[in-house]
Amino acid sequence: MALIVQKYGGTSVADPDRIRAVAEHVAFTKRHGNDVVLVVSAMGKSTDNLIALAEKVSSVRTGREMDMLLTTGEQVSMALVSMALADVGVDAMSLTGDQMGIITDTVHGKAKILEVKPERAQEAIAQGKVVVVAGFQGLSTNNEITTLGRGGSDTTAVAIAAALGADSCEIYTDVTGVFSADPRIVPQARKLARISFDEMLEMAGAGSKVLALRSVEFARNHNVPLQVRSSFTWEPGTWVTAEESSMEDPIISGIVQDANESKVTVLSVPDRPGISAALFEPLAAANVNVDMIVQNTSNDGKTDISFTVPKAELKIALEIVESVAAEIGAGGVSHQSDIAKVSLVGAGMKTSPGIAAKMFRVLADEKINIEMISTSTIRISVVVAAASTEKACQVLHTAFGLDSGQAYSAPLPERK
Amino acid sequence: MALIVQKYGGTSVADPDRIRAVAEHVAFTKRHGNDVVLVVSAMGKSTDNLIALAEKVSSVRTGREMDMLLTTGEQVSMALVSMALADVGVDAMSLTGDQMGIITDTVHGKAKILEVKPERAQEAIAQGKVVVVAGFQGLSTNNEITTLGRGGSDTTAVAIAAALGADSCEIYTDVTGVFSADPRIVPQARKLARISFDEMLEMAGAGSKVLALRSVEFARNHNVPLQVRSSFTWEPGTWVTAEESSMEDPIISGIVQDANESKVTVLSVPDRPGISAALFEPLAAANVNVDMIVQNTSNDGKTDISFTVPKAELKIALEIVESVAAEIGAGGVSHQSDIAKVSLVGAGMKTSPGIAAKMFRVLADEKINIEMISTSTIRISVVVAAASTEKACQVLHTAFGLDSGQAYSAPLPERK
Repeated sequence: MALIVQKYGGTSVADPDRIRAVAEHVAFTKRHGNDVVLVVSAMGKSTDNLIALAEKVSSVRTGREMDMLLTTGEQVSMALVSMALADVGVDAMSLTGDQMGIITDTVHGKAKILEVKPERAQEAIAQGKVVVVAGFQGLSTNNEITTLGRGGSDTTAVAIAAALGADSCEIYTDVTGVFSADPRIVPQARKLARISFDEMLEMAGAGSKVLALRSVEFARNHNVPLQVRSSFTWEPGTWVTAEESSMEDPIISGIVQDANESKVTVLSVPDRPGISAALFEPLAAANVNVDMIVQNTSNDGKTDISFTVPKAELKIALEIVESVAAEIGAGGVSHQSDIAKVSLVGAGMKTSPGIAAKMFRVLADEKINIEMISTSTIRISVVVAAASTEKACQVLHTAFGLDSGQAYSAPLPERK
Repeated sequence: MALIVQKYGGTSVADPDRIRAVAEHVAFTKRHGNDVVLVVSAMGKSTDNLIALAEKVSSVRTGREMDMLLTTGEQVSMALVSMALADVGVDAMSLTGDQMGIITDTVHGKAKILEVKPERAQEAIAQGKVVVVAGFQGLSTNNEITTLGRGGSDTTAVAIAAALGADSCEIYTDVTGVFSADPRIVPQARKLARISFDEMLEMAGAGSKVLALRSVEFARNHNVPLQVRSSFTWEPGTWVTAEESSMEDPIISGIVQDANESKVTVLSVPDRPGISAALFEPLAAANVNVDMIVQNTSNDGKTDISFTVPKAELKIALEIVESVAAEIGAGGVSHQSDIAKVSLVGAGMKTSPGIAAKMFRVLADEKINIEMISTSTIRISVVVAAASTEKACQVLHTAFGLDSGQAYSAPLPERK
């Protein structure tokens, strides 16, 4: 008898019909001898609707009150899903984040989970109940209701799976798994059967929206096997698990594009110690998420520093950087938003030299100019003009042999 | 500096504009040197919408999960109202029923408040904050989220006012106060300036919807002065306070009609000890709210027993009564739904004999037949044909001198 944590995103519980479909799938899993804990998101667009309501009511929306407001969305879902389960004969009990023992820090809007106290859930499971938990929420160390921020329900699911020692954590969403590239851009993209935590982390960091970065980190740190699946087709999805090297591992697992960043360049910066800190410390203090940073070689004691930030944070980033640039005597600040980041991710890269060189050559052959480069041990990211994104993804997908064949041939756990 | 508890019903917070109007009124009250605690209901029809959603999802809707679902409505309101207050410069903090320390028994759907632990609210008030509490909800003695049932937000407000030792409790609704009769039926009905707890209790018991019975009981027991007011006009409403006899007290304060009950008659019941208990105990066990009970004099050792129940509970009441009737050898069971109850309420009745006789004469003159009669020290209720309700209310309103003049001339506290 396995203990499976299943997380259902907003599209999976968007309306009464979808909720009943979820209940039937859970009943199926339960009848096959498994214990099940569900984590649910708010229904469809309900979080967006609550945010719109708040915007109509007030221009002062503190994190505490927004968390009070938004946590109701998941609470509605958990109650409805529990009732739908009762309707198909499954004894279910819903739990808020507080009741589930999700203890977080005190940062409203993007709280971090510090601890999960699963006693109440364990008691219910021992009584044969399916436990339905509101995702995305917790109780802070000073007894306030908090939300976990973007992708929070995935993190809730993984944290609960870790705390309960679950056998696996299934993330149900509106796609059937993790693909070698975005199928809307690269039609020949393939669904991956398996991918390692590290690769998934790089993909999430490179802009893949399938799983939230924090949930993958959590899963890796606690070694919780994840499966990304569709609640619309119920077909087997993509397993995200600890790495097991295999002769048949491909060098590249996937290509990820991200058009959500802008590039900021600080021109003619005096090249002396402490300049980078002067620039990036105030950005960090303002919670601006700086991604790629590139500094050119010094020329006459001056250098250009470029970095990317989410488009939504560009305005605040520019305000800060323009003020700092004046202070440190830089030549000026420019920015560019019609860019996109294209990343190659693959664990095999570690042992295969020349991947970067091949990537640059493939792009050069297509006359796609590379504006920035950054690399990790298993990822290479380049910034290109936004208009070149599709072409870049397509030619790289073909050039790195992702168009056909099975990426992994290792046997996989059997699951419905 | 007074401490005022203000309760806003669903129509008062139905949309962003109404919520902002509430915030401005609270800011006004606060600027005039008062501490304010708000209790809010769910927005407009949102509770009905959640119930409709639950009905679409499942035929099994346990009290626990319905409470999980429905308490989100008030949580949304409290967060939005707090944000609207911040927008007009008032420092506000929302509290769920749990956070407000509303401890209830364990009866989901109609829990009773056992205790209010107001420390967290008191701390916030001491910091100059307006506290915004979700009405209708609490935390049970076994740590489950509960709802208080019909009119629960009024009860929340009064309980908090009592626990905090508030100077008054203002109940904002969509009517401007308590009237001498329903103005839709009796156009010449007047708004009462003041009414006693006892009279208000009788009016609520007789079917008046202005205040929930339990909230009035609570206010009387803890001597919390209530004011019923409109959040649409903000004009002074009706004070509900402890009785202070006055020479100018009218004999009758108001007329209340109630078309929500049905009459059940058990025919030819053997007239022996224990029969009434045999009949009404199972109804009580099934939570059927029996209102008026009339037993005719025995005739040949047989009697007819009639009683009224809410129309919504008629079906279950008939099932029970038909089974009991067979057991005790009664002649049969009949029922009638096209009836209405008309009640006269007035504290002056206690010392004025002949009110009942006059009431019966007035109705007889209009050829309105009386089917049942029940009385308390300050109320006389009769059951008449539903079609006669309006006529009965109108002629009684005139006959008892309610059409003109001020009912109470005692000076009233001045409030905006």
